[in-house]
Amino acid sequence: MEELKLIQKFKKLRQDKSVYIGPGDDAAVIKSGKKYLLFCGDMFIEDVHFTIKKCKFEDIGYRAVARTLSDVAAMAGRPKYIGVSLALPRKYSKKALSILKGIREISEKFKLSIVGGDMSRARKIFLDVWCLGYAEKNRITTRSGAKDADGIFTSGKLGCSLNGKVRFRPKIKEAQFLTRNFKINSMIDISDGLVLDLYRILSESKKQAVLFKDHIPLNPGAKIENALYDGEDYELLFTSPLKNRGTLEKKGFFYIGFIKNSRKAKVSIRNTEGKTLPLKIEGYFCL
Amino acid sequence: MEELKLIQKFKKLRQDKSVYIGPGDDAAVIKSGKKYLLFCGDMFIEDVHFTIKKCKFEDIGYRAVARTLSDVAAMAGRPKYIGVSLALPRKYSKKALSILKGIREISEKFKLSIVGGDMSRARKIFLDVWCLGYAEKNRITTRSGAKDADGIFTSGKLGCSLNGKVRFRPKIKEAQFLTRNFKINSMIDISDGLVLDLYRILSESKKQAVLFKDHIPLNPGAKIENALYDGEDYELLFTSPLKNRGTLEKKGFFYIGFIKNSRKAKVSIRNTEGKTLPLKIEGYFCL
Repeated sequence: MEELKLIQKFKKLRQDKSVYIGPGDDAAVIKSGKKYLLFCGDMFIEDVHFTIKKCKFEDIGYRAVARTLSDVAAMAGRPKYIGVSLALPRKYSKKALSILKGIREISEKFKLSIVGGDMSRARKIFLDVWCLGYAEKNRITTRSGAKDADGIFTSGKLGCSLNGKVRFRPKIKEAQFLTRNFKINSMIDISDGLVLDLYRILSESKKQAVLFKDHIPLNPGAKIENALYDGEDYELLFTSPLKNRGTLEKKGFFYIGFIKNSRKAKVSIRNTEGKTLPLKIEGYFCL
Repeated sequence: MEELKLIQKFKKLRQDKSVYIGPGDDAAVIKSGKKYLLFCGDMFIEDVHFTIKKCKFEDIGYRAVARTLSDVAAMAGRPKYIGVSLALPRKYSKKALSILKGIREISEKFKLSIVGGDMSRARKIFLDVWCLGYAEKNRITTRSGAKDADGIFTSGKLGCSLNGKVRFRPKIKEAQFLTRNFKINSMIDISDGLVLDLYRILSESKKQAVLFKDHIPLNPGAKIENALYDGEDYELLFTSPLKNRGTLEKKGFFYIGFIKNSRKAKVSIRNTEGKTLPLKIEGYFCL
């Protein structure tokens, strides 16, 4: 996994003391005056993350922004400004306005200002959206805070998320609600699959997790394998003290397992007969 | 020119009142508390902006950052943090570390913190570097401030800049020096060629320009056409009251022409016989 190696390298880089959270989480957090700036970006590439056959151009623009906002949500941040890099093959240059339309729609929905952009030619459609926003220091949720005996929760159903719906609503409000009302010890958005993204929390928190097979909520048509390993769900995955389970479930969140102390990060699944088996750490991950 | 159309669209988008300078300049400027944040990005794409045959992987990383810093320089800003999106074909995945090395080298040189990144697979090497920095309100230089009778200046020689040297030094210090010591009415970095980037100043400032053919400083091997139309120079192009000419020339800047009032943006060139001819507005520009 070259990306993991590279992230390790990035994490070792010297950072200015104003850098509150550096590389390796869903977004960077920078102290600026009395404020905490949030800064993150996400690429959306033709034939890697989407195909032209299955997507309208407007939806491509929409989703490119939504993916970046999902990273902001994972930190419980408030997105404010976006910069958009768009590269297109010449044959699609007239489609740029359609892509922009989708970008505008989601920007209006989330009251974002589109403050900058770069355009170029390329062989494949390439979008990279960088977001600038704010966070409140004591409500920032990282990957590294999971505690022993925390419950593990998701904000929605999992698996087969890309079937037929390209647009999704990044869970900005849910993250705000959660951090306003509960102790949320760790959080990530599920972009590369439940198991892999949970593993990222466990690695950073130095913990292990046990999932309950019959608790994992499935999208229509999805099997348990889809929920565990499909990418592109864009639901929140978070841990919170187990005592919050009842209230969180009433509010529509799903309790799917619990955190345990461990020397080594790992994910297990407990089936209905109470048998616990280790899960292979893999997911939708492209390098 | 689809990009110009699109930029017009972008410029019409509603912006939050905290947006001090929106799309269409070299960088966006955002008011955040008492500070003015600078935010900009630039793509660097294989077989569009560079080829593998002519570039070392380290130099690719270096240049991708340098290009973005050049936009910061054009606004007389101070770069502080960068986020890097990197997409690579699988065959190059082991080269990611070399690219990172180049990114680190220039980051150390300019005391930047690399705070975030995104990685993906792609058919061609794709880099997109977004920078966050600061500016001082009364020293921000835009494209729109050129005044009648301003002199036009560059920070260096032009043309054939890509011949043999992939690395270049973004003119952050020069821009700081200029805005500290002179009234700089407008500024841009020359990325797509002198004529096209000057035209951008003229369009925003509603002015015209006359260049002196024998004043335009040429790189070794470059002809006047290269200086006018080659991309990738990354020198500063700025206008300042003509009275500053002597001092600026002593400091190594080149006086190349002057600004005139005009109803329509245009660029002319005056040859040694005093004959003035209009120049075609074109440049290195990919869409």
